[in-house]
Amino acid sequence: MRTMRVGILGCGHVGGALLGLLDTGRAEIAERSGVDLEVVRVGVRDLARSRSVGGEASTPARRTPSGVKSREEEGARWHQRSSYPDSRFTDDLFSIAEDDEVDIVVELIGGLKPARELILAALCRGKPVVTANKELLARSGRELEESSRHSGRSLLFEAAVAGAIPLVRALGESLVGDSVRRVIGIVNGTTNFILTQMAEQGLSYEAALSLAIGLGYAEQEPSADVEGYDAAAKAAILAGLAFNADVTVDDVYREGIVAVTNDDIALAQRLGYEVKLLAVIEREARPGVVGPEKDSPRLSVRARVHPAMVSRVHPLAGVRGQFNAVFIESDAAGELMLYGQGAGGLPTASAVLGDVIDAAHSLTTKSSARPVFRRTVEFLPIEELRTEYCVYIDVLDQPGVLGAVATIFGEHGVSIRWMEQFDLSGEARLVFLTHIARESDLRATLADLEALAVVERVGQVLRVHGQGES
Amino acid sequence: MRTMRVGILGCGHVGGALLGLLDTGRAEIAERSGVDLEVVRVGVRDLARSRSVGGEASTPARRTPSGVKSREEEGARWHQRSSYPDSRFTDDLFSIAEDDEVDIVVELIGGLKPARELILAALCRGKPVVTANKELLARSGRELEESSRHSGRSLLFEAAVAGAIPLVRALGESLVGDSVRRVIGIVNGTTNFILTQMAEQGLSYEAALSLAIGLGYAEQEPSADVEGYDAAAKAAILAGLAFNADVTVDDVYREGIVAVTNDDIALAQRLGYEVKLLAVIEREARPGVVGPEKDSPRLSVRARVHPAMVSRVHPLAGVRGQFNAVFIESDAAGELMLYGQGAGGLPTASAVLGDVIDAAHSLTTKSSARPVFRRTVEFLPIEELRTEYCVYIDVLDQPGVLGAVATIFGEHGVSIRWMEQFDLSGEARLVFLTHIARESDLRATLADLEALAVVERVGQVLRVHGQGES
Repeated sequence: MRTMRVGILGCGHVGGALLGLLDTGRAEIAERSGVDLEVVRVGVRDLARSRSVGGEASTPARRTPSGVKSREEEGARWHQRSSYPDSRFTDDLFSIAEDDEVDIVVELIGGLKPARELILAALCRGKPVVTANKELLARSGRELEESSRHSGRSLLFEAAVAGAIPLVRALGESLVGDSVRRVIGIVNGTTNFILTQMAEQGLSYEAALSLAIGLGYAEQEPSADVEGYDAAAKAAILAGLAFNADVTVDDVYREGIVAVTNDDIALAQRLGYEVKLLAVIEREARPGVVGPEKDSPRLSVRARVHPAMVSRVHPLAGVRGQFNAVFIESDAAGELMLYGQGAGGLPTASAVLGDVIDAAHSLTTKSSARPVFRRTVEFLPIEELRTEYCVYIDVLDQPGVLGAVATIFGEHGVSIRWMEQFDLSGEARLVFLTHIARESDLRATLADLEALAVVERVGQVLRVHGQGES
Repeated sequence: MRTMRVGILGCGHVGGALLGLLDTGRAEIAERSGVDLEVVRVGVRDLARSRSVGGEASTPARRTPSGVKSREEEGARWHQRSSYPDSRFTDDLFSIAEDDEVDIVVELIGGLKPARELILAALCRGKPVVTANKELLARSGRELEESSRHSGRSLLFEAAVAGAIPLVRALGESLVGDSVRRVIGIVNGTTNFILTQMAEQGLSYEAALSLAIGLGYAEQEPSADVEGYDAAAKAAILAGLAFNADVTVDDVYREGIVAVTNDDIALAQRLGYEVKLLAVIEREARPGVVGPEKDSPRLSVRARVHPAMVSRVHPLAGVRGQFNAVFIESDAAGELMLYGQGAGGLPTASAVLGDVIDAAHSLTTKSSARPVFRRTVEFLPIEELRTEYCVYIDVLDQPGVLGAVATIFGEHGVSIRWMEQFDLSGEARLVFLTHIARESDLRATLADLEALAVVERVGQVLRVHGQGES
């Protein structure tokens, strides 16, 4: 059995966990996978920092949905406490990417720069690269793929989208002959934790965010999560995989959860829904084209991230806390859902390790990288989305107001499926669930409503997925 | 782009659906995957039979859990109605397996004979083989794998365990560097449909089975499903993948659902559980060994299929109807669940197609088959299982009976966690939930109870998974 020499760039939560898994599990991994993996070099930015290897730094104690102690928590126990950093550590990152003694490069430093240059340098030297860098893939995925194709070496990124959930293999291999219609994901654990705390414990958004920061689930500067940037990057990668499309994060419509209130959640629950931050990518169903698009020159795709009301009978509604799940609808396979830990040091390291073993096999079997094919697609703007909406409007409590409001809905062709009026002090809150309507029509409706003298406030708009129980 | 010539053995539900996908989707598949797949030969047992190609014969109209029309159902619409059989059809199956004009062989005839000989013949001729034959893999997997290794050609079987659910890639690739502790699956859609109908519609077992037969979800002779043989074969394959163990169906403990009554289900629901037929494979946790087994000579594994009470808060409890799901617990990745359609022509054909594309890539990139490593494992008998149990006993309604019964539990060291007594006419039903106990002790307890004069009947024993809400 030939030893494959691994160089790891970055030794944070994920890198440290991976190093622990490889150092302590080497014999077991070799026995199971047939490849002997030795970490020969570890690149860090600051050699002076002490290292916590084995995953525990990344893993605040947590309880899983089934109430048992997290495997991650227990798993951390069996990693040796070694003295890191050791002689393998260096702060010269490029020396690892270009080292002839390194067979496989793992990029876990994150961010755009110098991660991009490091990956390109490693591929250029004929080394397969494993990365979990969603931000970079969502910006420069096409360039990195071309470099991979040019070098004939794999660029693997199972860990970049949903941590331990084997989503990249599912979309890129299992379903590559099928025709995916839509992928709906809860792909950001931080926001799902916050929304779950708001829904189940009644915490305010601010209190839930503070709790998430305290538990280490959110950053002190949380905008990447709560504004939806992280989910949008993942949506771009998912769209690329599902539709073989060239998608960047700029092609993704994005709203975060900062405007979601406890009132919104309570109302949703009353109607049989949960509020979730969804990443949705979908192929547009065009009239007359129900099968594969072989006769159409282009594929029409929409990618969007926003809070939504998810029917309680939909499997995604039950995904709680920091867990992730991705629901896939495809022509032949039907409905699939993959659920698991979308972040955390050890879960993400597990996915990286699966890719490292893949890369090692590609070297031992001398197989070139599996080619990736990209198609030109048309991106559909959010304004052309057709879905159901839930919206509320606070109005002066006067006779005739509902008539005026309903008239405006009607003028824009937005049909109301359900309406309820709640008394506020001196005002009334009108809550509407619409039938399927076009986003541009709904927006025009809301603009006209805001101009109405009796309308005090137009509330958060929530797009609706699935049937409620109302 | 080189054309890869595919030979399909078997044109039933799955084979017909695959033929439809490949015939109508050829251009789309080539565009997405970069391989041009042409079905050049189709082997059937009876050439005279007319063929229904495209998946519709296998797909009774169904509603999915989220209430939308099944993709399978809709997908069937866009397949061309061609006149099958055509000139590619033959009833000489071996001529396909041995045909030099066939690059990839897909075995979908099922059963042991002649499937085994056909697969061996194809591998021997240097052709990669894709199969969905769980029965054969659970009997002769080792032999087929060795033939694959010897020929250097892939033997792929994603569709054999859970239809469209990408479980084989998850366990065999994504998690191959991780250490799987336990896999719990609902892997038989027929029995899950029956149990769901019993639980939700109050149908008797017999009525639910009749409905399943009428809808095409169960065979007229349903024992492979309802006696747990199908699930046991899948458990053997899962155990092989999860633990790199050499497992056959004979190593799997098996109980079916024929003894499950509406009373059992109602009782379980009252306690916060759903009754499911589970396939459970697990590594035994031995004291002192919490990490990878690098110092232990053997791995201790148990594989079992039986009805069980699943806590309503566990994600598996919500898997309804003919859907399948597999819950994986592993050291680093933590908890994962994969959910989808475990059977049906089109979903299974989708998984087969993913493997066919994999096989085509292995031919174009000239890569040899990814090797599979097997370890010697020790199989733990069901008698050594330690879990919680729910059992009920119908007794004569006399004073002192509970004391006598409880004494027998105590004599065998089976500790009672909860007990409730229900009045029957002239009798009483005592329902017990135990703390964790050893199966052999529970069995000894029940044997002694049966010998007791006041005991009229010992009911179905249900093993308990997870915490209920009682």
